[in-house]
Amino acid sequence: MYVETAGGVHSPTLSGTTQLDSYRPLFLPTILIGDSRLGGISSTISSYESLVLRGYIVDAILLFRDEYYRNWEYLSSYFAEKGVQVHAVDPPPAKHTDNNTNIQLTEQFYWKIVPSNNQGTIFDTVRHLDICHTQRLEELDSMPRRTLDTIWWPFVQHGHVKTEKDVTVIDSASGDVFSLYNGHNTESSTPSLLEPQFDGSASWWTQAVGHAHPALTMAAAQAAGRYGHVMFPEATHLPALKLAERLVKFGPGRGWASRAFFSDDGSTGMEVALKMALRAFAVREQGGLKSGIGMEKRRGLGVLGLKGSYHGDTIGAMDACEEGVYTSEWHEAKGFWLDPPTISVRNGQTVISVPPSISAESEVETQSLGWTYDITERFKTPLAAVYRQHIESTLRKLRNSERTLAALVLEPIVMGAGGMIFVDPLFQRILIDVVRSSNAFPGTLSTTPGEWSGLPVIFDEVFVGLYRLGFESIIPLLGVFPDISVNAKILTGGLVPMAVTLASDSIFKAFYSEKKVDALLHGHSYTAYPVGCEVANEALNVIEKLSKSGEWEEAKARWASPQETKLQSNGVWSFWDPDFVSELSKLPCVGEVMTLGTVLSIKIADDTAGYQSHSAQKLLDVIKSSENTEDVSPIPGGSPFGINYRTLGNVAYFMLSLNTAPEIVKAVENRIWRTLSS
Amino acid sequence: MYVETAGGVHSPTLSGTTQLDSYRPLFLPTILIGDSRLGGISSTISSYESLVLRGYIVDAILLFRDEYYRNWEYLSSYFAEKGVQVHAVDPPPAKHTDNNTNIQLTEQFYWKIVPSNNQGTIFDTVRHLDICHTQRLEELDSMPRRTLDTIWWPFVQHGHVKTEKDVTVIDSASGDVFSLYNGHNTESSTPSLLEPQFDGSASWWTQAVGHAHPALTMAAAQAAGRYGHVMFPEATHLPALKLAERLVKFGPGRGWASRAFFSDDGSTGMEVALKMALRAFAVREQGGLKSGIGMEKRRGLGVLGLKGSYHGDTIGAMDACEEGVYTSEWHEAKGFWLDPPTISVRNGQTVISVPPSISAESEVETQSLGWTYDITERFKTPLAAVYRQHIESTLRKLRNSERTLAALVLEPIVMGAGGMIFVDPLFQRILIDVVRSSNAFPGTLSTTPGEWSGLPVIFDEVFVGLYRLGFESIIPLLGVFPDISVNAKILTGGLVPMAVTLASDSIFKAFYSEKKVDALLHGHSYTAYPVGCEVANEALNVIEKLSKSGEWEEAKARWASPQETKLQSNGVWSFWDPDFVSELSKLPCVGEVMTLGTVLSIKIADDTAGYQSHSAQKLLDVIKSSENTEDVSPIPGGSPFGINYRTLGNVAYFMLSLNTAPEIVKAVENRIWRTLSS
Repeated sequence: MYVETAGGVHSPTLSGTTQLDSYRPLFLPTILIGDSRLGGISSTISSYESLVLRGYIVDAILLFRDEYYRNWEYLSSYFAEKGVQVHAVDPPPAKHTDNNTNIQLTEQFYWKIVPSNNQGTIFDTVRHLDICHTQRLEELDSMPRRTLDTIWWPFVQHGHVKTEKDVTVIDSASGDVFSLYNGHNTESSTPSLLEPQFDGSASWWTQAVGHAHPALTMAAAQAAGRYGHVMFPEATHLPALKLAERLVKFGPGRGWASRAFFSDDGSTGMEVALKMALRAFAVREQGGLKSGIGMEKRRGLGVLGLKGSYHGDTIGAMDACEEGVYTSEWHEAKGFWLDPPTISVRNGQTVISVPPSISAESEVETQSLGWTYDITERFKTPLAAVYRQHIESTLRKLRNSERTLAALVLEPIVMGAGGMIFVDPLFQRILIDVVRSSNAFPGTLSTTPGEWSGLPVIFDEVFVGLYRLGFESIIPLLGVFPDISVNAKILTGGLVPMAVTLASDSIFKAFYSEKKVDALLHGHSYTAYPVGCEVANEALNVIEKLSKSGEWEEAKARWASPQETKLQSNGVWSFWDPDFVSELSKLPCVGEVMTLGTVLSIKIADDTAGYQSHSAQKLLDVIKSSENTEDVSPIPGGSPFGINYRTLGNVAYFMLSLNTAPEIVKAVENRIWRTLSS
Repeated sequence: MYVETAGGVHSPTLSGTTQLDSYRPLFLPTILIGDSRLGGISSTISSYESLVLRGYIVDAILLFRDEYYRNWEYLSSYFAEKGVQVHAVDPPPAKHTDNNTNIQLTEQFYWKIVPSNNQGTIFDTVRHLDICHTQRLEELDSMPRRTLDTIWWPFVQHGHVKTEKDVTVIDSASGDVFSLYNGHNTESSTPSLLEPQFDGSASWWTQAVGHAHPALTMAAAQAAGRYGHVMFPEATHLPALKLAERLVKFGPGRGWASRAFFSDDGSTGMEVALKMALRAFAVREQGGLKSGIGMEKRRGLGVLGLKGSYHGDTIGAMDACEEGVYTSEWHEAKGFWLDPPTISVRNGQTVISVPPSISAESEVETQSLGWTYDITERFKTPLAAVYRQHIESTLRKLRNSERTLAALVLEPIVMGAGGMIFVDPLFQRILIDVVRSSNAFPGTLSTTPGEWSGLPVIFDEVFVGLYRLGFESIIPLLGVFPDISVNAKILTGGLVPMAVTLASDSIFKAFYSEKKVDALLHGHSYTAYPVGCEVANEALNVIEKLSKSGEWEEAKARWASPQETKLQSNGVWSFWDPDFVSELSKLPCVGEVMTLGTVLSIKIADDTAGYQSHSAQKLLDVIKSSENTEDVSPIPGGSPFGINYRTLGNVAYFMLSLNTAPEIVKAVENRIWRTLSS
């Protein structure tokens, strides 16, 4: 089957976008019809580039053999270098004044270009397309085996992935949907070799505006074309400067941050944050790193955090967490971690689970999810005093421990990789308040506005920041500013890696002197690379437009309290339906459910809990493949689709983009419901 | 001044490339003349995208107001979203049969579109262009101040960068050249506000094929358009698979590697390598990480390395090095580092400098640079036995140290960040041989082919790999395979960050089991992101073509021995001229010089050596600005240019791309020579 499109590649369609974007979800192999006229070399190349920008595979270029301009000659060699064949076809005859002659000449022309001996350009082209098609299928078919033989996956026990059908072959992706090769999947209900699959981990937590968003591609291309990469020390360029200003003044740093330090991923961003905090502490408490304080004492600095924390996989970031299955030979837990109370929905009710170390009352039911995140109200409840007392007494005990606590490190609201643990925000808030004001850290208290006090406070917002939980920043939820924060993942819209560590002026000053050795001697070659910065700028633009578009209002309204029809500005909300969440939490196989923003977390009731549990994976495995239903599929193309999802032990989670269509959310909810309630 | 180009944006120029690429080094602001005819919406948008792909700033789009197709209407709203103004101009009159009438009509038309009252579309456009121009200059002028107020630079003491003229404002880059705003540079000799500057650090060691190479931009765009980012665990996609196969089978992993593990930068790649090596050692020596061996013992594992090593800035990678100015509070030097002999050119002579710990004879003159890197020949010299004896006796002493050595970690040939230390390859080779075969590590020796023996050997090739030193891989120079290697920087051609850790099957097997906890539980969200992988594939393509193009033959021939006119395949060579290097090394202010491939390192004779020294910076500072000479500048545009360079204490280094034009290399050499010899 051939789909012939009308006009140029960017001709508008009825939906308002141009053909290239409208047809993109179908990801059809493409023949570009080139232009043989004056100017046709340029328009053919530009059309090709517009196709490439949207990921299209151009198998061949066909154009008329115009003997005057001879565009095909230049284009053949131009595209040969790119591995694209150019075929020139004899042009049709000039229009004749006599209609019958005209018809006759045209018919002759057609017979001439497709002669009965099956020779000539058109047949060459068809044969070439056949070869392309065959090779493409062979390649797709060979990919699982070749992958199993060459790739070492992150976080994967290769002993568990032995057969070709266990390998997810992603041929392309568009919006929230992967296009998978399912030639090895005997259970698939789709007749097509390519099957759509909803990207239920928002591509490992990075995705914000759908795969292959043209605006992000253009941003990447423009920065690549203008700069490539340019070394950053003592230098500046617009993409980095604009991003820094935006984050510091108008983004998550608004109101407290003065500086942006760029690095390559959340883990390196956290290493930078730790280096900043440890030095700031050492400078104030001990008179500075370079002042002759012994190594042992400096190495003995530690962090205060929460059990279940996870700040990235490099060894330094890992050392800010407890030992666990993720930690390596060199891991050394450098700090102390409190067991935090958590929030979840159980049997349709929002509950606070309080660990026995804090209170004998282990479960506190609350009025609603919204109320639970209203810190001002919660301060009035008895739990606030219980938390404060527990934290103060714990810190008193820690004063005699071997490690000198030098920083408070928190994932605000949710500890993601630790198992989607929704921490009670009241507990985090009181912890910060106590650290900053109590006599636990008398030597480093400060009353100067803007100066860190007690301990520098680091917010690891890599997962929770930038609208993942429905808020640009989670800072207003806690009502206090950090001294250092880290953003990554959504920062670059789910396209390329980058992280930014924001710091207050009080932290920056600890490194400022006339001596080079006092500086933050940390950096990566691609620090603040223009492509990453420009993609981030554009991702933040797209997200800002989305947040103002009104598209989220319907979801927000569902989470408003019964008295209100609209959420308050600080009110928590979710893209997932509250009734769905509530009903899900009542299922016998479900222990608890929790949601905020794009995240849905389902803890399977399982006695062998923890990271090694496979219960969530087993229970939900079937939803990876598509299901034959009567329902019309809401994804572009209308095919039935599977759902790709990831688990953390007995926790299955599902994550949306910020522009996932409501009907797709509904379909995903329905599929989860059917699977878990059956 | 307006430069009117002919035909479409991609019309060919006489040089064979199209206009877009030919004019790109000039980076002129652009007005796109759109197409008002049928199909003109598409060709206008595609032309715009081709401009954007090369980084052009399109200030306005002008097209005729064709009342039938009304393209300007659609285009105005389409481009409004992108912040580009579209202006529609009344079309010229139809051609009249009478020539005089024709002339008259045409003149009337011109008067009509530029009326004497200065009103109308053309004047609006000119005013808009004026505004764009003014804003652009104001923005450039404001960038240093804004940067000083918001950015926290890597490796920079902000106390040293206080004034606006100290900030390098990079407006664009092309080939090897930055385009700098020099409005704050009162010493500049250029009348233009923009001044070219040679990128002498090859953009912090990443650059391989020049800035803004169109092939790399297209590769980034195609992967972004086809996939965005797709989660990688248990998944595969073509860009990652092709890159992995290429590196493992045909690249630096050829002959020994079986697996590719992706991460985000050299530092994370080294953390992965260390985790691999430590585990492999623990499994064989101690029966595995999870087998109940105490934490203390595992933390006590250490690495063997060389003094001056540097493996990246994350804390774990730093722990594989000695303490130094770069290390943070949490640093703990986990290992032992031998003081290595080094190679350099002094007073025109290649010498091996042997540290006193190894031999009383501190300087050994050699026949030539080429001979010094001929390991087979060098094995026959007395130094080989001296090295072996020293290494064996050192390892014997280390058997009683607190740390159990668990890996040998080397930057082969050159230790870059440690100060461009060119290590004697014979020493590294013998070190590897001894580690793999001596009785220093009797419990972990293996005679099975392909299995690691003694200690897993890690090659940190982040800086030295992929042609930085003139060789695809430095492995043939040493003549032995590693068990683990890390590549980054040039891997992605100087565009976006990515690293790959290659491992032998013997290492991979240490993590292979039926238990999830045994797996390498490490990963970053953007692991194997398609844009990075596709850019890497294309960068390797471009470099492979270069290496086969014969373009390097002239430089290679200069480094051939007097008996030969061509280098042997393993012969060392440099893009820098041997006579220049030799003469430079004889200058009184120069201690020693060294070069291989693209790297030129100049150690300034300075008693206060080390990272805190500013001698190199002071001596060379003048070359950052352009110089008025009679010579015609070899860079595109022909302007005089400055040279951007970086120092490591008293070492100044200069680094080229793999396609820097020979006449530019010559000009850079001349400038260095004039500066240091004056």
